[in-house]
Amino acid sequence: MRAPGTRPRLLLVQAFSLPADSPNNYRKAGGTKEQQLMNHAAVAPLLADVAWDLHPGAMAPHGNWPVETREEFAIAGVARLPIVREACESGKYDAIVLLGGGDPGYMEAREIGRRHRIPVTANAHAQMHLAMTLGNRFSVVDISETHNAHMAELVVRYRMTDRCASIRNIDYPLPRPAYGADRPTLRGEAERHAAGERSGMLEGAVAAAIAAVEEDGAEVILLGCSGAFWLQAPLQERLRAAGWDVPVLEGYRCGIELAKLMVNLGVDASGITFPADPPAHRRRRRFV
Amino acid sequence: MRAPGTRPRLLLVQAFSLPADSPNNYRKAGGTKEQQLMNHAAVAPLLADVAWDLHPGAMAPHGNWPVETREEFAIAGVARLPIVREACESGKYDAIVLLGGGDPGYMEAREIGRRHRIPVTANAHAQMHLAMTLGNRFSVVDISETHNAHMAELVVRYRMTDRCASIRNIDYPLPRPAYGADRPTLRGEAERHAAGERSGMLEGAVAAAIAAVEEDGAEVILLGCSGAFWLQAPLQERLRAAGWDVPVLEGYRCGIELAKLMVNLGVDASGITFPADPPAHRRRRRFV
Amino acid sequence: MRAPGTRPRLLLVQAFSLPADSPNNYRKAGGTKEQQLMNHAAVAPLLADVAWDLHPGAMAPHGNWPVETREEFAIAGVARLPIVREACESGKYDAIVLLGGGDPGYMEAREIGRRHRIPVTANAHAQMHLAMTLGNRFSVVDISETHNAHMAELVVRYRMTDRCASIRNIDYPLPRPAYGADRPTLRGEAERHAAGERSGMLEGAVAAAIAAVEEDGAEVILLGCSGAFWLQAPLQERLRAAGWDVPVLEGYRCGIELAKLMVNLGVDASGITFPADPPAHRRRRRFV
Amino acid sequence: MRAPGTRPRLLLVQAFSLPADSPNNYRKAGGTKEQQLMNHAAVAPLLADVAWDLHPGAMAPHGNWPVETREEFAIAGVARLPIVREACESGKYDAIVLLGGGDPGYMEAREIGRRHRIPVTANAHAQMHLAMTLGNRFSVVDISETHNAHMAELVVRYRMTDRCASIRNIDYPLPRPAYGADRPTLRGEAERHAAGERSGMLEGAVAAAIAAVEEDGAEVILLGCSGAFWLQAPLQERLRAAGWDVPVLEGYRCGIELAKLMVNLGVDASGITFPADPPAHRRRRRFV
Amino acid sequence: MRAPGTRPRLLLVQAFSLPADSPNNYRKAGGTKEQQLMNHAAVAPLLADVAWDLHPGAMAPHGNWPVETREEFAIAGVARLPIVREACESGKYDAIVLLGGGDPGYMEAREIGRRHRIPVTANAHAQMHLAMTLGNRFSVVDISETHNAHMAELVVRYRMTDRCASIRNIDYPLPRPAYGADRPTLRGEAERHAAGERSGMLEGAVAAAIAAVEEDGAEVILLGCSGAFWLQAPLQERLRAAGWDVPVLEGYRCGIELAKLMVNLGVDASGITFPADPPAHRRRRRFV
Amino acid sequence: MRAPGTRPRLLLVQAFSLPADSPNNYRKAGGTKEQQLMNHAAVAPLLADVAWDLHPGAMAPHGNWPVETREEFAIAGVARLPIVREACESGKYDAIVLLGGGDPGYMEAREIGRRHRIPVTANAHAQMHLAMTLGNRFSVVDISETHNAHMAELVVRYRMTDRCASIRNIDYPLPRPAYGADRPTLRGEAERHAAGERSGMLEGAVAAAIAAVEEDGAEVILLGCSGAFWLQAPLQERLRAAGWDVPVLEGYRCGIELAKLMVNLGVDASGITFPADPPAHRRRRRFV
Repeated sequence: MRAPGTRPRLLLVQAFSLPADSPNNYRKAGGTKEQQLMNHAAVAPLLADVAWDLHPGAMAPHGNWPVETREEFAIAGVARLPIVREACESGKYDAIVLLGGGDPGYMEAREIGRRHRIPVTANAHAQMHLAMTLGNRFSVVDISETHNAHMAELVVRYRMTDRCASIRNIDYPLPRPAYGADRPTLRGEAERHAAGERSGMLEGAVAAAIAAVEEDGAEVILLGCSGAFWLQAPLQERLRAAGWDVPVLEGYRCGIELAKLMVNLGVDASGITFPADPPAHRRRRRFV
Repeated sequence: MRAPGTRPRLLLVQAFSLPADSPNNYRKAGGTKEQQLMNHAAVAPLLADVAWDLHPGAMAPHGNWPVETREEFAIAGVARLPIVREACESGKYDAIVLLGGGDPGYMEAREIGRRHRIPVTANAHAQMHLAMTLGNRFSVVDISETHNAHMAELVVRYRMTDRCASIRNIDYPLPRPAYGADRPTLRGEAERHAAGERSGMLEGAVAAAIAAVEEDGAEVILLGCSGAFWLQAPLQERLRAAGWDVPVLEGYRCGIELAKLMVNLGVDASGITFPADPPAHRRRRRFV
Repeated sequence: MRAPGTRPRLLLVQAFSLPADSPNNYRKAGGTKEQQLMNHAAVAPLLADVAWDLHPGAMAPHGNWPVETREEFAIAGVARLPIVREACESGKYDAIVLLGGGDPGYMEAREIGRRHRIPVTANAHAQMHLAMTLGNRFSVVDISETHNAHMAELVVRYRMTDRCASIRNIDYPLPRPAYGADRPTLRGEAERHAAGERSGMLEGAVAAAIAAVEEDGAEVILLGCSGAFWLQAPLQERLRAAGWDVPVLEGYRCGIELAKLMVNLGVDASGITFPADPPAHRRRRRFV
Repeated sequence: MRAPGTRPRLLLVQAFSLPADSPNNYRKAGGTKEQQLMNHAAVAPLLADVAWDLHPGAMAPHGNWPVETREEFAIAGVARLPIVREACESGKYDAIVLLGGGDPGYMEAREIGRRHRIPVTANAHAQMHLAMTLGNRFSVVDISETHNAHMAELVVRYRMTDRCASIRNIDYPLPRPAYGADRPTLRGEAERHAAGERSGMLEGAVAAAIAAVEEDGAEVILLGCSGAFWLQAPLQERLRAAGWDVPVLEGYRCGIELAKLMVNLGVDASGITFPADPPAHRRRRRFV
Repeated sequence: MRAPGTRPRLLLVQAFSLPADSPNNYRKAGGTKEQQLMNHAAVAPLLADVAWDLHPGAMAPHGNWPVETREEFAIAGVARLPIVREACESGKYDAIVLLGGGDPGYMEAREIGRRHRIPVTANAHAQMHLAMTLGNRFSVVDISETHNAHMAELVVRYRMTDRCASIRNIDYPLPRPAYGADRPTLRGEAERHAAGERSGMLEGAVAAAIAAVEEDGAEVILLGCSGAFWLQAPLQERLRAAGWDVPVLEGYRCGIELAKLMVNLGVDASGITFPADPPAHRRRRRFV
Repeated sequence: MRAPGTRPRLLLVQAFSLPADSPNNYRKAGGTKEQQLMNHAAVAPLLADVAWDLHPGAMAPHGNWPVETREEFAIAGVARLPIVREACESGKYDAIVLLGGGDPGYMEAREIGRRHRIPVTANAHAQMHLAMTLGNRFSVVDISETHNAHMAELVVRYRMTDRCASIRNIDYPLPRPAYGADRPTLRGEAERHAAGERSGMLEGAVAAAIAAVEEDGAEVILLGCSGAFWLQAPLQERLRAAGWDVPVLEGYRCGIELAKLMVNLGVDASGITFPADPPAHRRRRRFV
């Protein structure tokens, strides 16, 4: 547990890293931790009162492109676990924040964290829970059909089925060999927007979010993929301008804030949900 | 919105206040804000990085005893709204934390806060949401049959029905004329425990929490009434000693931390859930 | 309990009253009870076999306009409770019917009624329950975005979430200073229809009801606001003419009939749901 | 529709009749309608303001014993439909009340009634719906394992799954050849109680109802079989004496009162739920 | 139980038969079992490893037209039960497959089969369960508004409500006197398609299935009526050609395969769900 | 797709293999496929009409003990995927059956199989779905607290939450270093029973299953861990002897039969649930 009067120490762990020369890179590798953290400027205020490190994640074992299929998420998730274990054992951190919209390895990482009384948060999980404190139903604005299928499964695993109005597909996927060279992806969209140019991805997100609110009953908007988290501020602004005062969340800030909250409260997870190894208790029955 | 680099400014508002000479008082009136805040020592670390005031709450309009019936909760809730409005209009606060286990006036207070972009949190609401980030199902250890009925209604209103394993009654109610003089209440139990004596209330809470975990499937324990929040530390300790590593939450800390989180994220509530007056938008339909 | 061979004695209680000179009045104040009861002609047959009084409701404490926000509903609800208590204590009534589409003070009033073994019914509650005896899912045709948000909360509180197909907004709100002078409201619409003129409110209700049936899966239509209850007969007729044989309910008749039914069956409410003060029983646990 | 100023005309239809010489009879055949109507004295006040006839039901086609299996319920249900059709076509009735705890033929009878705009009610259906107006969860005190299985299916069909706390078996079945001669049945229990003797069936019902309230979370008690409806008054009294102020309902009175209510409101069922033949409308899709 | 090394022996039972001269016939009566089994060519491979008989079903007691209303389904269901009983008692069959999209008499037939340890399957039931092994939500492409209402009830009875995205109506009903002579029905559509002509019924099914997938969230398509089972192959092909790789199921093959599976596993049904007569056990309570 | 007239070709894949000299082995490694397949004698009849191979699974990467924690299940799941891919690409199999009670790698394996139109089944998934065709609610008799937590997560992922009555812990875990040498495990229990000796594991399973039926409302019993699948026959027998005619399922036979059924029907999974890579279609929104 954190020493009194000190700042919480967080480790942020990327979902995976790609070879520097991969043609499918969509975020910067190398450089300072600030440079490696996407949308750092927006996230920085939340990190001002903590000490933090950034781990670049394991080199992706599945190939030189970002994860999108269920298989790739599973592989990336398992590859991240040794990083989590090592961080827990190091005694250097009060909490771990898993970066990456699809939460690879999250439930297993919590199980590991639990044994060290270290809370672990993740982007989709934190977004969904915080969304529920703000409104009754959320929609996820997400990047591709395959990613949608994974997000739907996370909604189920996190028992948020009744709270999820829809997952809206804007069809700006991560770069991927299977798509071939011509397929538009999310690469370059953030830069385009930052340069003051029109971003089709932002326009698609605005249309998807409004449809989610008007047709599906969404009261809060989440962003599905960390490659889309840059949309938070412009999408929020555009919705407000259109008369829809609907909170737009993204995963980095939600994961960081929830981690800080857990550190402050001195909680990490339930020992029933994540039993110790071996378990300290025995129950006759478990309800699902 | 909070000025950058400043500490969040919170107003904590008691559920109600009783006349100083009421025979039914169960918490200290008057004195410094620290003295008025029950369990201040436990809460203090979470308030170290904020600026905070304490409002004693409106003088109870229903009588000189604590609220327990639905009617009393409604009356106390309405009586608290002018305090919330005034605080919002004062420009002095970044967030408001409603104290009191049964959240009197919470939904209405959020509606008011929403118009000023000021988040409002409450004890049961914050506990339930944070419990869900720690485990799959919670039980509420609560003080009396009548209070249980109110808590059950809060669970429904907060759409947590599927997440609530049970509400366990330890039958140490708040003092109340209807009970007559002989009925044991929660008054004096915290003091008894603090003095190293056996507290029947604590023993009842331990038994209730273990039954909730073993029989009802609880994975997290909440405390229903602010008069029982002192149980958090001893109950947590007792459960761990019995082999049950189950988080025990209480409302003050959960409400404060959730308020800080919302301030940090710059969110308060959805404008769909709490429409402006007049609404900025128009929807054709609303799903429940 | 009612004396054998006598007619049930009902007290109908308006949700609130406005100053006679309020520019925001939308129903008649003063006059006979028949004159004060909106749509009396349609309701009269159901009152033929009972003895009834009408209470004008408490003078609205929140301002000189009708209730629409959560805050206003809470204030009006609390203001109505003394009327309910007094009526129960008077021994003059076998049941109380709370008038007003949004059921202000209903749960608290039932708690009071329970202690006197007097059933209390309310407009939205009775409509929802009776709708469920007629079809599988209902939609509420309702007057404004803010009122919709309140109705959605009632659906949740009454545990009808799975039964509510949608709440459809026709956007003919109650008069309200926040809207300014130019905003069309429901005022005058009933009169316009009665005069054989085209009512935009009725047309909107027809379109909303058909959309609810065709798109949302509604099998029964409810009316959300007492200011819209006059729509029942013309909306029913228009739907039938369009080939949709879907029952349209309104709150006054549902509340009255359910009250009569409860009187006849000798029931009012469960003592578990609404415990006595002090409770006659003690339970170890409560399921939500 | 009922002529104004006249009393509603109800037809009560028994679930089936057995040969007068059947060794498995458990209610009186022949005699006046009052003699044939079980528990007439208790029901009579509710019939005082209506005109009513009693149909003895079709002679049981399945055998000379009461229905208990799914097959027998289906057979009895189909055998009752011609009676319903004839009654509807006769123009003599404003509503039909199907007697019998397990509602044989109910959904089909409503379909028939719908075409004549005649409401049809049934005992389990009416009990469940009225229970929900009184408390949040009900348990059914029922007579046998096989009857329980049928009641469970009715709960599902009536979409009351989330509202049913449990079905409690007191194991006093209807007489039946499969049981042999020695098996205790419900026959004679009502008479025993009426004679001031101890009834094992009543004792079992008291124990089952208290267990349902204490262990299962029931807030209202229903009775599953018309052969157990006589328990209503003594069970209610016993529960109150034990400190449990929980409403106990039975089917005859609930079915009759709901039928009167529907006649008064001029409703019978939704034309979406029960389409006309041929349907007056066409929908593209139906939600379940 | 089946003798080792022998082929399972199945009895397929038609839902009902119509007089050979009925103007409302839509499938062939008489001839070999292969000729009587609709779509035999498609089904034959699944029957290659079993011994099978076909029972033509009971002559329809309700009239000389196919079943479509709730009443007709109930009548046909009861008429089929003696066939099931006789088949069970004959000792000639290892399983019974009830043919007909709306499963008349299914639950009752299982109760009978249970007593002989003989599994009974039915078309809608098998389709729904197998659909759930392939995807998360299904839609039913169905033939008429009245049939839709029946299918919706089956979805509820089979506890598939959360899994059913929608029931889509293509409005090609079974022939029926109530429709008159001019109403297009499904008669002749299969033949038209087989002859290489355009079938409006197929076109409607394609449009309905795509709408179910795009608008309602269906992940698997079921066919509601045995008169529409011929659509399986062409609809599957058309969906794939349109880019939707969504499984299309039909009832005959699902019912047959599930029956074979149950025979192979040596299971038929739970004795709790379908208690013996008399029951071998006694439970204190049943959860729904 | 399978050539007509040939037997389906199945590949059975073990969850993982342990080093032959591991002190934690609980099933035989090496030998014929029949020797390696636990409970082969019971499974053999179901394999008589197929051609089958057995893959021993990947050598466990996590350590030399069986998987039990979430982390171990994830690691074993990922390690199994290359086997699945290779089998799909080989063109040698019509279906793949994943062995192992906790379904490691199942959802990812289906995604792989989908691209080759090859169905993949798994033990818990198949058991749950087939259980639902037999009764309304199932309980899982399972081996340890940690395994229970994993099974609970599978129930959620497979959307069976409402169908799962409970997971009952008999506390006979797999051997595991964390338990130390003295902890009783499931090792040797099957042999003990086969030798006619008393098995504490079987006794525990009988008690757990009866408690599940009597207290939790189970109507079907599943077995959680492949190391417990040997319990199927003796547990079934013991339950019947005790009067409980409740089906007991185990995973091998369920997985094999469901695979055969899918091959026969020519289905594998929905392309919406498991989109192709790249997807053949694009949807605007996905419902969870």
